[in-house]
Amino acid sequence: MRAESLPVTSSQASIARHYARVRAQTLRLVEGLSAEDCALQSMPDASPLKWHLAHTTWFFETFVLERYAPDHTPFQPAFRYLYNSYYNAIGEQYPRAQRGLLSRPTVNEIRDYRDAVDAQVGDLLATQTLTDEALAIVELGLHHEQQHQELMLTDVKHLLSMNPLSPAYRDGGFDTRESALPMGWSAFDGGVVRVGHGGVGHGGAGFAFDNEWPSHQQHLVAFELADRAVSNGEYLEFVEDGGYRQPALWLSDGWAAMRSQGWEGPAYWRSRDGVRVEFTLQGEQPLDPARPVTHVSQFEADAYARWAQARLPTEFEWEIAAAGAPVQGNFVESGALHPRVSACDGLAGLYGDVWEWTQSAYAPYPGYRAAAGAVGEYNGKFMSNQYVLRGGSCATPQSHIRATYRNFFPSGARWQFSGIRLARDLS
Amino acid sequence: MRAESLPVTSSQASIARHYARVRAQTLRLVEGLSAEDCALQSMPDASPLKWHLAHTTWFFETFVLERYAPDHTPFQPAFRYLYNSYYNAIGEQYPRAQRGLLSRPTVNEIRDYRDAVDAQVGDLLATQTLTDEALAIVELGLHHEQQHQELMLTDVKHLLSMNPLSPAYRDGGFDTRESALPMGWSAFDGGVVRVGHGGVGHGGAGFAFDNEWPSHQQHLVAFELADRAVSNGEYLEFVEDGGYRQPALWLSDGWAAMRSQGWEGPAYWRSRDGVRVEFTLQGEQPLDPARPVTHVSQFEADAYARWAQARLPTEFEWEIAAAGAPVQGNFVESGALHPRVSACDGLAGLYGDVWEWTQSAYAPYPGYRAAAGAVGEYNGKFMSNQYVLRGGSCATPQSHIRATYRNFFPSGARWQFSGIRLARDLS
Amino acid sequence: MRAESLPVTSSQASIARHYARVRAQTLRLVEGLSAEDCALQSMPDASPLKWHLAHTTWFFETFVLERYAPDHTPFQPAFRYLYNSYYNAIGEQYPRAQRGLLSRPTVNEIRDYRDAVDAQVGDLLATQTLTDEALAIVELGLHHEQQHQELMLTDVKHLLSMNPLSPAYRDGGFDTRESALPMGWSAFDGGVVRVGHGGVGHGGAGFAFDNEWPSHQQHLVAFELADRAVSNGEYLEFVEDGGYRQPALWLSDGWAAMRSQGWEGPAYWRSRDGVRVEFTLQGEQPLDPARPVTHVSQFEADAYARWAQARLPTEFEWEIAAAGAPVQGNFVESGALHPRVSACDGLAGLYGDVWEWTQSAYAPYPGYRAAAGAVGEYNGKFMSNQYVLRGGSCATPQSHIRATYRNFFPSGARWQFSGIRLARDLS
Amino acid sequence: MRAESLPVTSSQASIARHYARVRAQTLRLVEGLSAEDCALQSMPDASPLKWHLAHTTWFFETFVLERYAPDHTPFQPAFRYLYNSYYNAIGEQYPRAQRGLLSRPTVNEIRDYRDAVDAQVGDLLATQTLTDEALAIVELGLHHEQQHQELMLTDVKHLLSMNPLSPAYRDGGFDTRESALPMGWSAFDGGVVRVGHGGVGHGGAGFAFDNEWPSHQQHLVAFELADRAVSNGEYLEFVEDGGYRQPALWLSDGWAAMRSQGWEGPAYWRSRDGVRVEFTLQGEQPLDPARPVTHVSQFEADAYARWAQARLPTEFEWEIAAAGAPVQGNFVESGALHPRVSACDGLAGLYGDVWEWTQSAYAPYPGYRAAAGAVGEYNGKFMSNQYVLRGGSCATPQSHIRATYRNFFPSGARWQFSGIRLARDLS
Repeated sequence: MRAESLPVTSSQASIARHYARVRAQTLRLVEGLSAEDCALQSMPDASPLKWHLAHTTWFFETFVLERYAPDHTPFQPAFRYLYNSYYNAIGEQYPRAQRGLLSRPTVNEIRDYRDAVDAQVGDLLATQTLTDEALAIVELGLHHEQQHQELMLTDVKHLLSMNPLSPAYRDGGFDTRESALPMGWSAFDGGVVRVGHGGVGHGGAGFAFDNEWPSHQQHLVAFELADRAVSNGEYLEFVEDGGYRQPALWLSDGWAAMRSQGWEGPAYWRSRDGVRVEFTLQGEQPLDPARPVTHVSQFEADAYARWAQARLPTEFEWEIAAAGAPVQGNFVESGALHPRVSACDGLAGLYGDVWEWTQSAYAPYPGYRAAAGAVGEYNGKFMSNQYVLRGGSCATPQSHIRATYRNFFPSGARWQFSGIRLARDLS
Repeated sequence: MRAESLPVTSSQASIARHYARVRAQTLRLVEGLSAEDCALQSMPDASPLKWHLAHTTWFFETFVLERYAPDHTPFQPAFRYLYNSYYNAIGEQYPRAQRGLLSRPTVNEIRDYRDAVDAQVGDLLATQTLTDEALAIVELGLHHEQQHQELMLTDVKHLLSMNPLSPAYRDGGFDTRESALPMGWSAFDGGVVRVGHGGVGHGGAGFAFDNEWPSHQQHLVAFELADRAVSNGEYLEFVEDGGYRQPALWLSDGWAAMRSQGWEGPAYWRSRDGVRVEFTLQGEQPLDPARPVTHVSQFEADAYARWAQARLPTEFEWEIAAAGAPVQGNFVESGALHPRVSACDGLAGLYGDVWEWTQSAYAPYPGYRAAAGAVGEYNGKFMSNQYVLRGGSCATPQSHIRATYRNFFPSGARWQFSGIRLARDLS
Repeated sequence: MRAESLPVTSSQASIARHYARVRAQTLRLVEGLSAEDCALQSMPDASPLKWHLAHTTWFFETFVLERYAPDHTPFQPAFRYLYNSYYNAIGEQYPRAQRGLLSRPTVNEIRDYRDAVDAQVGDLLATQTLTDEALAIVELGLHHEQQHQELMLTDVKHLLSMNPLSPAYRDGGFDTRESALPMGWSAFDGGVVRVGHGGVGHGGAGFAFDNEWPSHQQHLVAFELADRAVSNGEYLEFVEDGGYRQPALWLSDGWAAMRSQGWEGPAYWRSRDGVRVEFTLQGEQPLDPARPVTHVSQFEADAYARWAQARLPTEFEWEIAAAGAPVQGNFVESGALHPRVSACDGLAGLYGDVWEWTQSAYAPYPGYRAAAGAVGEYNGKFMSNQYVLRGGSCATPQSHIRATYRNFFPSGARWQFSGIRLARDLS
Repeated sequence: MRAESLPVTSSQASIARHYARVRAQTLRLVEGLSAEDCALQSMPDASPLKWHLAHTTWFFETFVLERYAPDHTPFQPAFRYLYNSYYNAIGEQYPRAQRGLLSRPTVNEIRDYRDAVDAQVGDLLATQTLTDEALAIVELGLHHEQQHQELMLTDVKHLLSMNPLSPAYRDGGFDTRESALPMGWSAFDGGVVRVGHGGVGHGGAGFAFDNEWPSHQQHLVAFELADRAVSNGEYLEFVEDGGYRQPALWLSDGWAAMRSQGWEGPAYWRSRDGVRVEFTLQGEQPLDPARPVTHVSQFEADAYARWAQARLPTEFEWEIAAAGAPVQGNFVESGALHPRVSACDGLAGLYGDVWEWTQSAYAPYPGYRAAAGAVGEYNGKFMSNQYVLRGGSCATPQSHIRATYRNFFPSGARWQFSGIRLARDLS
């Protein structure tokens, strides 16, 4: 984001309170886990939980304490390298795929690191008057940490899923619901619309990442959007109809990915003694036909949509549909840690439950420019070969999401809580 | 494309004449080449020339003769499998990466195959009155063949480039030009514009691929476009300024691709006894600073643009700029087989010389629907993880290109005649 | 090994005492380590420490308790699959390369597993009179466990070596010695010799693996053997003489392995601020020129020998030389955990310090037959593309080694304490 | 081989005659083939036929003309690099896996190269009196060329096998024989034997490669050898008995190779309309149960032997058995180009038909030393991770083989005419 315009959207006191809350929430996510649960890395895309604990702390030490805390001395100089994720402007990085090779520092030593940095940041916020630039970085760090909170849940879920013992992250089972509501459709007119975050001076309120800027106009063609996400039951029909064996339904790259990786259904669907179950953060649970399908790639979402004689929405269609809706839904605060059936009628579930794949490539908005320096690496350099997801999931903190929020992953990614909402052309 | 609306844009007699011309032109491309030049495959992305000779013939046999020629018997039944590129609706395909393992049929046997099919298609066109549907497929086959004519040149260039003897495809050298004109800029207003091919009944004239449909509206923000493509000399400054060593200039995937593949400049730049040369279809030639740079990936085009404090245009910006311009330029008919300096002043060189990378992901236009059946696989299934190039190159037949034409390749592709035209935000 | 002749070499009471000692020693190896140190896997060849703790226990549960303990119920049925290393006769195995993905069971739960099995085996040995077959399996299990004790040290060393913090397994430094003794040579006559383990009834005493059987005759040509292992200082001369840049010194596969993996010296040699150091189980230590070089592949050992105008010994030359020597040396019991300079004069250091690469492919002895059933998979099926090492190392338990002992690893393996002893033809 | 003792085994006149014969025979192998047949490379292990034509010529140009022909000028300087296979002492080499990327020089240009070199070598042999050293190199070059003659047949067979059209190298079919003779066994005593080639001064006669030196003693244990090679019919029983699904029959590496590469039978066995056929140099032929099985890896040979309650012979057992037999059999001169049923009774078929896998790792004989310089790279540097085959095949020139001849390939290689002869322990 542009350093000169990085907005502060709250007072210093409010940011200080938010800091304490967000940092504490991160630790709650590892409560009850063993040191081993926190140390392992199940694939290059995922990171060990203790790496998340350290990296989010590194963010504050590197971008806040190093710059704004007088007399700051590094907790451990090697951490600057070890816990840098991808900020080339800060220097070299320990290889991502080897994050699971670090038995030291232990998770307890990383807790000490968190404590030390929290004490210093807390002190800074309590005793110094920070510039807007400094406060904006603290705020960015908290939204950054909330992103990692979600990744901690999806990463630990992936790790536990690799274990033949199918262990649960949290205890508790699921009540199987009767059935989902029939799928209705909501229509939207075409024309020129304004999308993206208002930003300072443009009527926007609250924090946004630079990839939501600038607010700008897009021309849409009239369309309709499904009232709810596609359910497990509906997706199962696609599977049982041979959806994974019909090349005509798939993008060419999707067909290749599906075959080379042996996909036969969503990432965590399994068969146990002839019964379909789903691996969840509560261990294996019977597959509930009414709940939204999740852990599908964009390739699968696209193939399903084609089978259903529909298509994926663009990110702007989604944003226009969500513009008026309150940010409510099944977020991480519900404790469900899994998508649920939306209770209400009409256009529902846009927020929470599952991230909704769009057909939109992740690209810069007209006029976008990344910030100078390291924070400029936050978003812009990933605008290639990724696709946008919208709306947050059951693993997203509620205060983290908004209508203009753009999440992005490669078309083949399946370990996020990603699902499907259909769209159709009108006319 | 939608079978029901596949347009015929010429009379049967005109199509018959076009058929004879296009088919003959394909053979001219292999004149003077050895059987070995025609048989080898240098990488999975490229195909042997004789495969192109056979596959373009397979297209007419499969989609025209099989369907419309009474009593057609296959020339050789195994060809249906052997020369099917990617049409799942036709059946299984011989693996793309193994096209270079077929010593039989020989190139002479494939010439016999061409002759036999040409005789039958010629007979069909001369003696039967074909339906619009049938004529439309013939026309599609000719545009298909023109695409392969361009690929034949880029594939054989890649093959010869792998040979330490640096052999030439055609004799003849280059005159080194004095210098390129200074780079000027042309400004364009923002607002809602209409893009895409008119199609039948929408005012469109002439053939278009289904991916250019439907004509629709886009909202643009005011911008300016460089008057000419980036030159070798300008790109060399980027290289010598350490452009390939500054991660801040690159997309994350681009940086990774560049390092893992060891790129240090455009694909065919080399150093010979301390002098920079460029491998061309005429063998190694001194690098001409004035000519457009070519054989760069979208990653490199994007990094160059960032270094030059500009950006790549969107495909719609390019299309609006090109809308009024005549389709003139350095095409394959010039015989140059390499980009040249544009002679004229003002916005120039949009057509021919080099395909111009855009920042636009290759995606369906609003309302796009692929045709039913095999020809529906022509374009739509590749709309994933590819980016659009516009304008044609020195290897493109002039009659093949138009303002709405969308070429597409992955961001890392470098073996096409791909180059860079810069754009900038206005205001 | 042949089930019918699996020898028992000790009394039941003696085996019971040995059982308690060996099992306790395994646990001593993980004293002071964190749960994370025990859980991570640094490469497919290495296993997490807690996997070793579980697998050695699985051996006793599967081969002893399942067969000989009345009313045995499995501790946890999934362990039969999870901790089976490579015994196809027992059933499918959890993939080796994924041993580092198991956060559960925790190391503490695995300690419980050990306790439970130890209690049952202890009870069995104390209260039942076991058959020779059963006792032989217990004895095999103890030698198996000693092999894993050595692997635990080399695996944790490899894991810690991947950590940029260079953490130590054990505290304590090294005294740098003055210098190694000059290299002398001991000569041996040619002729027919008897090698291999005597076995029951052939004059052999004590335990041996089946790959040491049968005792048989070999014809040797007169040779001489270096009195001690090659030192770091000598190996450094080879490095500094460009040994890694001269293809004529290398086997073809060795040259390819060295270049593709970027070897420039033994596995754990490093440069720290311009000084050569060696990563050891006590962390980084200055490279001691007098100590035996270790962590070299057979390829490097072979190249060094060629450079030194010598060769590697055959395994039979080594065995004949060692036949008369007492099994003494720097074993794991010394606590050094690193090779040391041999104190004595004459042929020395055959046992302990470093495993000595031979030029002998690991192959069956004439008349060898593997046992029926699972224990038959212990050795025989690995007799392909591996080479024999002799003599044990500083990580080997003293009671585990003998003159006929055959260790084996692929030519490119470097994470064992492997070193070099030279041989030369006489005449 | 030791340059100082490279033996000349014939007169200069005799060598000159042999030169003309061998060089002409090489060209006969490509008679009737297209340029494409000669240009393609089907896998990194195989080379294009025209590469063989050029490389064998390069051998004479580099090792004979460069050294011994006054005023020799290189035919084309780039060939020194292009056609060097693996001689590091000569300089860098064009990458092996890219030999199929060279459309130029054409096969006709390579014939010109052959003609030019042949004229010069012929002139040298006719007009100069060469030193023994020079003559020995010419002789080595001829044996080298004979090795490549065999590789030309196995490489073109592999290439044609990749073609779905199953084209034939030569016309002509097979007569299916009645049945193989029952398998008898010949017994041999144990004791110390002399193996290896006598060499100059040791009673040896005729040419031998350095890897057959020195003649030396080995101690053998009494054994018996099957009278003939394993037949297709016998191997089929193994396949149908589930041999490829029983891990207990396989070496660990063999099991892994078989599964990862999807082997279900010998390399060229296929099913065509429900009938077992075998791809041969005469195209697909019905599988003849009586003929020797061929194109099996050492892993498969070893598994078959275990299933048959036998084992593979050592190379010395084979050599002792063959010592007295005349070098007769089905060699390339028969024109059969495929193994045949041995006509005679008793120990038969040791020579020709199929190379017989042994269990012996390819290793240096006691006292072996490679020659200085480039020819020293001929054999010695490959003595790692390969296994010895004995006896020659239906693609071997008769004058090329002898009892002491050691062929060698990795355990997984299947594209040679490799087969199985069983051995068993006696007593």
